[in-house]
Formats: sequence, C-alpha cells, structure tokens
Amino acid sequence: MKALDAERASMLVEALPYIRRFRDSVVVVKYGGSAGTEDRVLASFAQDVVLLHAVGVKPVVVHGGGPQIGELLRRLGKVSEFKDGLRVTDADTLDVARMVLVGKVNRDIVSALNVHGPLAVGLSGEDARLITAAAHDAALGFVGTVLDVDATILRRLLSEGLVPVVATIGADVTGQAYNINADTVAGAIAEALGAEKLVFLTDVEGLRSDPGDPASVLRQVTAERLSELAAAGAAEGGMVPKVQACVQALQRGVQRAHVLDGRVPHALLLELFTDSGIGTMVVP
Amino acid sequence: MKALDAERASMLVEALPYIRRFRDSVVVVKYGGSAGTEDRVLASFAQDVVLLHAVGVKPVVVHGGGPQIGELLRRLGKVSEFKDGLRVTDADTLDVARMVLVGKVNRDIVSALNVHGPLAVGLSGEDARLITAAAHDAALGFVGTVLDVDATILRRLLSEGLVPVVATIGADVTGQAYNINADTVAGAIAEALGAEKLVFLTDVEGLRSDPGDPASVLRQVTAERLSELAAAGAAEGGMVPKVQACVQALQRGVQRAHVLDGRVPHALLLELFTDSGIGTMVVP
Amino acid sequence: MKALDAERASMLVEALPYIRRFRDSVVVVKYGGSAGTEDRVLASFAQDVVLLHAVGVKPVVVHGGGPQIGELLRRLGKVSEFKDGLRVTDADTLDVARMVLVGKVNRDIVSALNVHGPLAVGLSGEDARLITAAAHDAALGFVGTVLDVDATILRRLLSEGLVPVVATIGADVTGQAYNINADTVAGAIAEALGAEKLVFLTDVEGLRSDPGDPASVLRQVTAERLSELAAAGAAEGGMVPKVQACVQALQRGVQRAHVLDGRVPHALLLELFTDSGIGTMVVP
Amino acid sequence: MKALDAERASMLVEALPYIRRFRDSVVVVKYGGSAGTEDRVLASFAQDVVLLHAVGVKPVVVHGGGPQIGELLRRLGKVSEFKDGLRVTDADTLDVARMVLVGKVNRDIVSALNVHGPLAVGLSGEDARLITAAAHDAALGFVGTVLDVDATILRRLLSEGLVPVVATIGADVTGQAYNINADTVAGAIAEALGAEKLVFLTDVEGLRSDPGDPASVLRQVTAERLSELAAAGAAEGGMVPKVQACVQALQRGVQRAHVLDGRVPHALLLELFTDSGIGTMVVP
Amino acid sequence: MKALDAERASMLVEALPYIRRFRDSVVVVKYGGSAGTEDRVLASFAQDVVLLHAVGVKPVVVHGGGPQIGELLRRLGKVSEFKDGLRVTDADTLDVARMVLVGKVNRDIVSALNVHGPLAVGLSGEDARLITAAAHDAALGFVGTVLDVDATILRRLLSEGLVPVVATIGADVTGQAYNINADTVAGAIAEALGAEKLVFLTDVEGLRSDPGDPASVLRQVTAERLSELAAAGAAEGGMVPKVQACVQALQRGVQRAHVLDGRVPHALLLELFTDSGIGTMVVP
Amino acid sequence: MKALDAERASMLVEALPYIRRFRDSVVVVKYGGSAGTEDRVLASFAQDVVLLHAVGVKPVVVHGGGPQIGELLRRLGKVSEFKDGLRVTDADTLDVARMVLVGKVNRDIVSALNVHGPLAVGLSGEDARLITAAAHDAALGFVGTVLDVDATILRRLLSEGLVPVVATIGADVTGQAYNINADTVAGAIAEALGAEKLVFLTDVEGLRSDPGDPASVLRQVTAERLSELAAAGAAEGGMVPKVQACVQALQRGVQRAHVLDGRVPHALLLELFTDSGIGTMVVP
Repeated sequence: MKALDAERASMLVEALPYIRRFRDSVVVVKYGGSAGTEDRVLASFAQDVVLLHAVGVKPVVVHGGGPQIGELLRRLGKVSEFKDGLRVTDADTLDVARMVLVGKVNRDIVSALNVHGPLAVGLSGEDARLITAAAHDAALGFVGTVLDVDATILRRLLSEGLVPVVATIGADVTGQAYNINADTVAGAIAEALGAEKLVFLTDVEGLRSDPGDPASVLRQVTAERLSELAAAGAAEGGMVPKVQACVQALQRGVQRAHVLDGRVPHALLLELFTDSGIGTMVVP
Repeated sequence: MKALDAERASMLVEALPYIRRFRDSVVVVKYGGSAGTEDRVLASFAQDVVLLHAVGVKPVVVHGGGPQIGELLRRLGKVSEFKDGLRVTDADTLDVARMVLVGKVNRDIVSALNVHGPLAVGLSGEDARLITAAAHDAALGFVGTVLDVDATILRRLLSEGLVPVVATIGADVTGQAYNINADTVAGAIAEALGAEKLVFLTDVEGLRSDPGDPASVLRQVTAERLSELAAAGAAEGGMVPKVQACVQALQRGVQRAHVLDGRVPHALLLELFTDSGIGTMVVP
Repeated sequence: MKALDAERASMLVEALPYIRRFRDSVVVVKYGGSAGTEDRVLASFAQDVVLLHAVGVKPVVVHGGGPQIGELLRRLGKVSEFKDGLRVTDADTLDVARMVLVGKVNRDIVSALNVHGPLAVGLSGEDARLITAAAHDAALGFVGTVLDVDATILRRLLSEGLVPVVATIGADVTGQAYNINADTVAGAIAEALGAEKLVFLTDVEGLRSDPGDPASVLRQVTAERLSELAAAGAAEGGMVPKVQACVQALQRGVQRAHVLDGRVPHALLLELFTDSGIGTMVVP
Repeated sequence: MKALDAERASMLVEALPYIRRFRDSVVVVKYGGSAGTEDRVLASFAQDVVLLHAVGVKPVVVHGGGPQIGELLRRLGKVSEFKDGLRVTDADTLDVARMVLVGKVNRDIVSALNVHGPLAVGLSGEDARLITAAAHDAALGFVGTVLDVDATILRRLLSEGLVPVVATIGADVTGQAYNINADTVAGAIAEALGAEKLVFLTDVEGLRSDPGDPASVLRQVTAERLSELAAAGAAEGGMVPKVQACVQALQRGVQRAHVLDGRVPHALLLELFTDSGIGTMVVP
Repeated sequence: MKALDAERASMLVEALPYIRRFRDSVVVVKYGGSAGTEDRVLASFAQDVVLLHAVGVKPVVVHGGGPQIGELLRRLGKVSEFKDGLRVTDADTLDVARMVLVGKVNRDIVSALNVHGPLAVGLSGEDARLITAAAHDAALGFVGTVLDVDATILRRLLSEGLVPVVATIGADVTGQAYNINADTVAGAIAEALGAEKLVFLTDVEGLRSDPGDPASVLRQVTAERLSELAAAGAAEGGMVPKVQACVQALQRGVQRAHVLDGRVPHALLLELFTDSGIGTMVVP
Repeated sequence: MKALDAERASMLVEALPYIRRFRDSVVVVKYGGSAGTEDRVLASFAQDVVLLHAVGVKPVVVHGGGPQIGELLRRLGKVSEFKDGLRVTDADTLDVARMVLVGKVNRDIVSALNVHGPLAVGLSGEDARLITAAAHDAALGFVGTVLDVDATILRRLLSEGLVPVVATIGADVTGQAYNINADTVAGAIAEALGAEKLVFLTDVEGLRSDPGDPASVLRQVTAERLSELAAAGAAEGGMVPKVQACVQALQRGVQRAHVLDGRVPHALLLELFTDSGIGTMVVP
C-alpha cells in the first residue's frame, strides 16, 4: 500500500459530509467565458461534473458561446452592428449563433462528458419547449428574453440519471428562435428546478464590491446587499446579468448562488466538497 | 352542418382500421433530400408526424443535410476534396457539418414540430452515446460508420410521449465525432428499436428496377429480390445506402420499409392511413 | 395515388387541432332514444366511439332503453300503471327493466364496440357500487334517483384503455335495485369524472327556445340562460331531464354539454372534430 | 367475556393454516343449479365469497341459469325444440338467455356480494372479449363452445381487489353472441388464470363411481381415474361437463378441482378452511 | 362433514364484519409483563398476531422485558441502585438491558411469529434512527425518553407485508443508547403511524377507577375522564405510563386504546373480532 | 484556496473511475476479528461503509463476535466444553451468544453507522427467515450450518437505500436458533445476492501460500488455485472458513473476493477506490 493511497482514502472520508449534504440536490452550473474554450479546462470541468453525478448530485450545465459565435461571423465576413454594446441579431446572425451554440459548443461539452459514459444529453431551449422566449428589444432583432421555463424535460432527464447540457436558444410559440443571455437562462432554470445551488464559472475570482479593485472580492454577500451594490454600480459588463440572475434566483427559492473562477482546476469540486470554498457565495 | 364536414367525418372513420393497426408502433422516418429544405414541405411533414403522434404512433425522425452543409462550406470558401464521390471530411469540415446538422437542420425540424406543442426533442448520436461510430475509411477522414446503437435514450423519450429528431453525428469512445450517412443511421435505429416501419422520404417516386426508367418504379418488392436487384446494379448514387438499409433492416426484424416521394403532400399519412399506399414497399 | 386519398390525408390533417385538444379528455356520451335501436345507427355510433378512443379521447357511454323495456313488458302481457307520465315500477317490472337494460341494450352496445377489438366493458350501477340510488317517489315503486356516484371503477377501466358502457340501474345499500333516468345518470357520471364534455345523442336537432318551433333550435346557450328557459317551460317531456343534467353538470365542473341529433351519421365526430359543430352547445 | 367468544377465537385460530395456505390464490367457483335460486342460499354463498376475499383469496364466480331461462321462455309462451337433450337456441331464445343470465342471475349475485361493500363486478364473456366462442353444433343454433379465453380483464379486476362474476355468454369476432355451458366456461377460466382451485357448487353430494348409487360418492379421485370412470359411463346428464371440465383443468395446470353440495350452508368455507373437507376432490 | 366444522364455518362468517372493518388498519400492540415470559402465552399471542396479519390487519409489536433484564443482572451479580422506584442505569446496565431486549426478548417474539412464515422483523429504536431519545433524568443514567419517532422504516416494512417487532432502545444523535419505558414507546409509535388501535396486553383485567378494587374495572372510558382519574391517583405503578400513553395517543389521532388481560387466551382476537370485547376501551 | 484543498479535489477526481465502476454494486463485507472491538477501528470502518453508500455502492455488513461471547460467558462463570476446537453450544450458551451478537455487537455497528444518518438496520438470520439453519454436528449442540438464504429482506432494504447489518444467528422451521460461523454466512449471503464483491476484514495481511510465512501473502489468486492450496493445508484455524467461503462464492457467481487487513485505516476504501489494492484478491 502506497502512502499516497492512504492519504487519498483519508481525503475521500473528509469529503463525506459534503457528499451526503448535496446528495440528490440539483446544481445548475453556468459554464463559459473565454477560459471555457480550452480543451484542458473543459476536460477538468467534465471530470468535476461527472464526479458530482457519481456521488448523487444532479448537475445541469448551461452554456453560452459569445467568442465562438464572433469567430464564425468573422470567418463568414459578416460585420455586426452594435447597440449599447449588444450585437444586433438579424436572421442570418441568429442562424450562425444557433449553429455555434447548439452544433458546436453544446456538442463539445456533451462529448467531454460522455467520454466518461453515456451521461450527457444536449438540449436547446427549443426542445420540448424548454424555454419560451420573446424579443428583448425590437431594435436588437432576435435577441431574446425568457418568458417561461417548462422544466419537464429537464426533470425527466435528471430522474433517469442523465446530465442535461442546455444551449441558450429559446423560441416563441410560432417557432421563431431567439439567442438569450446564458447567465439569465441559468438563473431561470435554477429557479424553475428549485435548485440547491446556482454556480457561475467565470474568468474572474469572484464578485467585487469595487469593480476596479481585484482586492475587493466578496467572500459572502446576501442577495439584498448584492442588489444594493448593483444599484450602486458595482457590477459592470458581463457581471450585470450574473448579479441579476443571482439576486432573482435567491429571491425565488434557490438556496445558494456562487461566482467562481473557472480557471482554477476543479473549481466546482473545491466549492462543493471542501470547507474553505472559493469565489463569492450569495446567500438569501 | 356542411356537406364537407359529413364527408370529413366519414373519411376519419375510414382511417380507423389503420389508426388501430399502427397504434403504439414505432415508425422511423428518414427525412431529407432537396425537397426537405422548403418551408412548405417541412410544415406539411411536421403535420404528418404530429398527427401520427396524436393517434398513438411513435415516430422517430432521422435526418441528414448534405445540401445545407455544402452551402455553409461554400460561404466559408472551403473547397472539399472528393474520393469516389464522397467528400473528404477534415476536422474543420466535420465542425461545419456538425454545426449545420445539429445546429440548423435539426433545429428547423424540431421547431416545425413544436409549433404544435412541446413534442420534439433534438438529439445527435453523441447524446447519451446513442450512436457509437468509427471511421468508414481512413482516406475520407471523419466520415463515420455505425458500430453500435444504444437506443435507451430513444425509448425513454418515446415512453414519455416525445418525438426524437436525430442528427446523424456519431462519436467514438474518445469523444471524436464522425459524420454518418443518414440512410444508414435510419436503418440502424429502426433495427435497434424493432420498428414496425422504416420510411425513406426522398425526391423520387420510389425504387426502380431499372434506374434509368421512371416507369419501372416497384410497388412492392421482397428484401431478397431487392438485394438481387442491387447486386445487378439497379440502385445508383444516393439510392445505394437506402437499398442497403432497407434490406438489412428487414433481415433484422423491421416489418416493412418504404421509399416514398416526400414531395407529395402528406406522403406519410397517405402511406400509413390509406389503402392504396404510394411509392415502394419492401416486405420480408 | 388516388385524388380521394390525397383529400382524405388533407382532412385528417384538418382534424389535428381537435384531436390534440381532446386528447386524454373524458367525454360522457348518453346514447339512446328510438334511433338507437337500429343496427345501422348503432354501428355508426360504435365507429365514432372507437375512433375517439383511438385518438386518445376517453369515452364513457351511458344508455337507457325505454322502448325496449316497453316491448318486453308487452310480450309478457304486463300492463303498467302510469302516474304523471311515469311508469309505476313494481318488483317484476324492475326485473324486466334490468334484464332489458343490462342483458340486452348494454350487451348490444358492448358487442358493437368490441367488433373493433377488446375495448368495451359493460357495467350497471350495481357493479362495484358505481351508483347508490334511492326511491324517487314511493308511489312510483322502484324508480330511483342518484344519491352518490363512486367513479372508482370507471377511472380504473379508463386508465386501462377500456370503454365503460353503463346501464342505468342503481342499488341502495341493502342491494335493492332501482331503474334511473339515463339522462340524469349521464350528468352525474360526467360530474363525478370531471368530464370535459357531456353529450346527449337524441332524436331531435337540438334544444329549442320554443318547444313547438323546430326553427328555434339553439346553437349555443349558457347554463344560466338554459336554466331560465327551462323555468319558463321551454323544455318538455324527455327534454326536461336532459336540460337539468346539462345545467347541473356545468355548474359542477363539466366544461361543455351538447345535445345532438344522433340520427345524423357520425354526429359525435362532427361535433368534436370539425369547426362547425352541430346541435346545441351549452357553455358555463 | 362470553364462553362463546373464547370458542370463536379458538376456531379462528384453527383456520389460520388454511387462510395462510390459500392467500393470494385464485379460486374459480361455479355457482348454480336449482339450489342457487333461493335467497337464503345465495346470501350464505355471498358471505363465503366475501370472507374468502377478506382473508386474501381471489375468488372468481362463474354462473349459468338454466332454470331461470326456462322460466322466462315459459312466460313468453315460447316452446323450445330439443335435440339430444339440448335446447335449440334461435336468435330470440338467445336474447332471452342473455337477458336472464346477464340481466338477472348475474345481477342477483353481484347485488348479494355488494351488500358487503363495493366488491363485485359483473361481466359476460362479451366484455373486453373475455370469451371468444363458436357454434357448438349448427343444428343447435346459438349454443356455443369456448374457442379462447382472454383473461386480461379478470386479472385486472382481481389485482384491484374486485370479485369478477361471469355470465357465460361468449361472442365471435363478428359480435354474434352464444350461450355456453357454465361448467365448461368455469373450467376454461380456471385454466386461463392458472387457478389454484376450481370448485363446482352443485345440488348433489359429490361425484359418484356409480351414478345410481348415492353411497358411491368419491371423496378423492385422480383426474386420470375420473377420466376412466367417465368413459365407463359413470357421469350422466349435467355431471358430464363438470367431469370433463375437472379432468381438462387438472391436465392444464389447475391444482385441485372440487364438486361440492352447494345446499350445505357455507360449503365453500368448509372445503377450504377445515381439515375434513366435503364432497369430491379431484387431484392430478 | 362434522358438526364442529359447520360451527366453525359459521363462526368465521360471524367474524366477517370485524375482519372487513379492520382491514389495512395499523394496530400497535404492547406485549409484555410477567405473563409474556411463558412459552404457551407467547405461542398464543403469536397466533393472534399472525391471524390479524392474515386477514389484512397491519400489526406492530412493541415490547419491554424488565423481569428478564433483572434476571441477567442477577446472574452477573450486579446490584442496581434505585431512585423513586426506577433502576439507575449505568453503561454496563444499559449494555445488559440492550442485550436482553434486543438479543433475547425481541428474538423470542420474532421466532414465535416466524414459525408461521417469513413474517416478522425485529428492530430496536436505533435501526434507521426509528427512535431518537434523550436522558429522562440525569440521575437515572441511560434511562431515556422519546424525543422523536421516525416511522419511515416501520411504514416500509408494513407496506411489504412484514410485522415489525420493536425493542424499546433508542439512541441520541451521537449514537448513545437509552433504555425507554415500553408503554411510552408503544404510544409514541401508535401516534407516529396514525394507528387505528393501541393495545396494551397486561396481567390485569383492565384499568380500574379505584386501584385497590378489582371490581372497579372500567369497560369504556373517554380519554378526558381517564386523564381526570389519573390526576386523582387512580393509576399506580406500571399503570401510570399506560394511562399516559393512552391519553396522549388518543389526543393525537389514534382512534381507540385498549388495556387487556394478556393472560386470557387469544385476548387480541377476542377484542378485535367479537362483539363483546374484553378489558378497558379508551375512546376520544 | 488552500493547497490542501486543491490536492483533495484532485484526489477525488482520481477516485472517479472506481466510483463509477462500483456504482449500484452489492459488496458484502464480513467485519470482525479482534481488531473490530476497538472504537477507533469501528468508527473508521463506519466511515468507509457510509462513503461507499454515499457514492452509490450497496454495502451489506456481516459480523460475528466470538471474543465478546467468550467474555460474557466468562462473566457468567460458564465453562464451555470444546470438541475439535469448536465450542459445544448448549441452550444457555446459545442464549448468551445470541444476546451478544444481536444485542451488543450488531447494535454497536448499527450505532456507529447511524451517527452519519438513518442508514443502517440490524438483522439476524431469524428476521423474515433470512437464514434457515440446521445443526452442524449433533455433538456440538446449537452450532448451525446454512441450509438456505432467503435474501428478500436484504434486497428490499438495499432498494430503499439502507445498509443491512447481519448477525449470524439462523433458525430452523420450528424457530430453534443456531449460532453460525460468520465467514460462512457472509459467503452464503454474497452468493444469494449475486454480489460483485465479498470482502473479509481480518487481522492478518492476507491469505498466505505458507501459513507460517508472513512473506508468503498472496496478492492475487484464482479460486481454483486457492482450493488446491487449502487442500494442501495452507489455511489454518479461522482462515479455513474464509478460504472455503471465497472459493464457493466465486464458483457461484460472486465476481471477486478479498481478504484484507482490517487494522489498516480505511482498508475498504483503499481496496475499492485505489489502483494498488491491498491484501489478497481471489478471482474466478
């Protein structure tokens, strides 16, 4: 017997209380950002999700894919117009976004998970009418907002021991598709499932009380306080929808929200299965 | 009461024996070809599938998307090499094919079905390891062949009253994806599900005993006779995998295979719910 | 392909929204009246019920059999006394009524349905204590009124895909049987099952605002208005219990009640599966 | 505490091994004969069946009703022709037989059982195609023979804790009804259900080795020996189908058949729950 | 047929209404006292419990074992200290008590029941955390009181047709065991299960209004009146926890409590299955 | 984030393939020997079992308790006779053994497990007739041998997510109890459950090819080779029943047997969840 093995056994035992605590809990994980595009990061993330699944947690993965959409638009020589920093999405751009999200990013995540077994099933919000969407702002074209989440298909897949991976395309009742912000979708799905946790894997260390000061990362913050900080301008850029999703999800029954640095190897496991935790935890 | 209504009632009643006969039967439908790209044709096809579903048939849709893949490659300025008429599929071409099949064609079919309700769920062969694939021929790159079909996920979706729509991408155990001929996949899925029927919706009137003679369309043919005709060269081009899939599926337990002209409005309903039938029926 | 077939396919498709709307709905149909005794009418009715069943509706058939009871009493040379137009039912008359309803009319309907498969199961209100009855009026003998409907056995049969056919004999707790008006029973069963629809197949075109004027047939009427019309004497004879059953059923949760002309071929299908509808529809 | 009660408790305890032995066993009981028409006998029989049911046995009651059919034919002034001692059954006679069996005798038994609770459901062989019949002999008209028993509906009712009561009318696939010998039906149903016991309640003390000698009642006999006795003419009249049903049922998996004197109060309980047993027991 | 058998059949029939009334009811029986240690008494009790089980009642047995604990302590030469008549229970005494209750008395009851089949499963309050306990009084050591009953394991065993036999050892969350008064445990379990009946088998004839007067046995008493009598000192010694358990159980939903003389053969059956009843019945 | 945590996460990930491999597998663990009596060892063992359970393995614990039985006999001043090294077990000795095994050792293990939650349920072979036993040798008294294992109760508890802990007392059909060798029982239970693994936690390092040479510990051995070694005398004393149980269990469908040193902390986890393994593994 190697000493390493003895240590490993001991560490498994230390994780026991956490494993028992989160057994059968739904954990919605928003995966993405620039870090997510590297194979090494994706493989590590996949291990974490599969381990959560193996010890009885019920993970749901939600992802976007902004950088990859931009890359294909660039290859196609398509120049986008922007309004208030948001890309105007015409029918062709939507088609490209949908192809990239559903046909590339979603597939890459599903494949990385299924290396470990027949575990993951990719979905978009169009499948079984998971996400009913509407236009966010007519001037932005097919950029959508979430009207309704029908989580039936997610519950079925979870009850069969599968890991749903959701691309954030929604559709209205006529079948018209929309591209929706992935942070918003993650929050809406966590709420619809009554998730125990909503986790955002990002490329920053956590939420900051002062956006310009990396040392101001919050370890723990209440939804109420976070709401005040946001009103005071503490969230900028891509952090805005994350903060909104955290606040709203906690107001509607989700127990905990986390903003973690996805570049840290096994960030998910560290957050769920160790005492210290990492990043920012939002509590009711 | 309008005379038209009385006639309609009477016609519904005439469909009764067919409705009862195919209740709870699995029918695998390969949808595709150039006709399939028109909105009108897709809407009519979707009505047929939803009606089958409404009267208790369990439809599974399988599709390819060759023309749409070619179109995106063209837009990207990518020139494909061909060997024996088959496109050599490098990693980038595979990415494009996967985006088009999973992120565009599959989405369009799912949307057309879900206009009628939360019915359809899109899948590729990578989801829950539905299709395990291997390289067909090293010289062709990531063109795949079907090694195994694990139909568990299809059975689950069917048992929950959903309509699976399958894009024909498979993966090997390392997660490497392959693009596979959709006719072949349809046959393999029909076999794995023990389907009652395997239906190919094409843009020809049926199988011909003489490929050059439109008048030689076969109304009914045994799998054995079809196999002989194929050996004698009666199938050409895209018909070859259809003929092979029909013959093999019938040898492995599928009850009937059909090659229909998908351009005929409601071709599926006509075949299943009327006496006359259309196209070619292959019997054991 | 025959033009007729194309038309038929097209008509099936037009019925699709109706099929989807009534899927899994319970529809209670009171069948009877003089028209019901003809084989041709019964065969057409059976086709309608089997088609409803085939497309996922859950039909329950309730029937009486006054003319047939009168016929057997006549053959037995038994002369009935009448009070206020109602037959005084002594023990022997009850025996005759029960034999005719349960042993003849019920059997004929069950047989006509089961020509299409093992679908129908005949019941009387005595089975599994479906209908608990009491004397309607001591002077009338064993003419009963509905005290309670225990629909457990109906729900079980429906959940197993069977079509219950109910003869309107009830019993009190001592086992004493009573003959009950079939319209009343149909209404009570629709209420107990929370039926979507309660349909009376009669030998008139519909409810009239003026009983003497065939041109006064109502196409649509609210339960409230119908109640007022009844109070004003607009319903006569056999229409009275139908009107009362319609009003009460709608007050207690049934969604729609219909009075149709059962002599029209496929009257049920026309009402459920076409736009125009026939007869009178009662709405809340 | 009364001495009587102590004795009763003691007697209950003595029945315990029998109660445990027959728990969950299907027992098919043919009830009928002239004794069966008396209210007192029927009430006692109903108590026995309800007690069997209460202690976990699964009873199925099968009945005929020859005397009652004869009585109604007589009242209608209808004179039957007989061939070889069997009544020629024309359409009108069949109608009468069906009314009496399904609408009177079956109802009386169901009512007697349901005095104790919502337990019994009456069926004829036409319900859910329980008994598929064919003509026994063209010269006899609608006298039927059993072609097939589809016991699905019986199994469902038994699994829901209900007591099926079967009237011995069968139908062919066109819906034509036939009157069938009740002893034969009881045997076929016992066989189809794989019953533990098949019990004939008759108005004789048991099977005799010498039909003319009441002292020759057999206590126990093998199916083989019974078959030989029958070939030698030991069974006469109504005993013939009972003997045939016993022999065939035991050859096809039923464990025990009994011919008991139904005039003995609580004959069923005595046979099942005491050591001595009564009547004739047929063993494999 | 023997006359005895006819009488037995008749007596079974007389028990029918009681059997039907208590079908599927949970009956918690506290078994114990000095009478319980005789093999003959235990065998008779086991027959009663198995008969209850056979006719569909759901019995749960709870037992103590004071005399047997005292006997083993004596053999071990261990002298107990007493406070207010209660034995001070140190760790070693607890070990002895637990061995006797779980490893001897419980085993004897389980064995006596399982002579009749694979029916009984022994439990202590430690199994699946059935009983969470706390110290009753620090001065008494490991004498416990019931903090909580988690009846999940009991419901599971009952739903699988098993008879739970409970030894009255509880544990706190650290796993420390306590010995608890069996009457108290029986009451708490009856309450947690929403039992129909709570029965104390004792070695007296019933509860008395005057503890010193055997003629003052109460036949029926309300919980309220019993509470008053107890306050007035009518219960002494071992009767106190029984009276408290009866009163509290009835206040919390149990329908009836009984104090019977367990020395009467088949006391349980006499109480449940005859008109007269024995001992004291407490009603709400 | 602490480095320790990162390391822990990484180690959890390394256990992933093992966790996935043994998910839903039944693992029967024989716990005992002198090491087992220390609290520290028991607590470590309990952590291992609870962790196995938490990650989806289905553990069943079987235990003996020879030293503890000897201790109580000594306290009671009871001197045992021995034959061929086996204790002659008279009725009183059996009572003592049963009290110790069921009322002490079993309780201690159940309590240690239930500190982590409502997980464990203690059983002896008498419960629900789990183990039917017979006398091993008349001269030894109530020393038993396993005639039959009815694992129904174990399967039920496992399917409800509980951990059965089995004391090795069996009973014959008359209810007479026997004390049975725990190694033998563990093997018989593993066989009856079709266990994936049978693990003996002992106080030696593993099986030896030469009983006198600690350096001859076998790392891996086939059942066949082990059988030969045993025939050649390589097993002595308490190792004999372990070896026999291993050989027989593997011949009857168990996949792997292990003999481990239970004194090594977390021996179970090391064997199941690390590459190296410890002790001896027996393969088919």
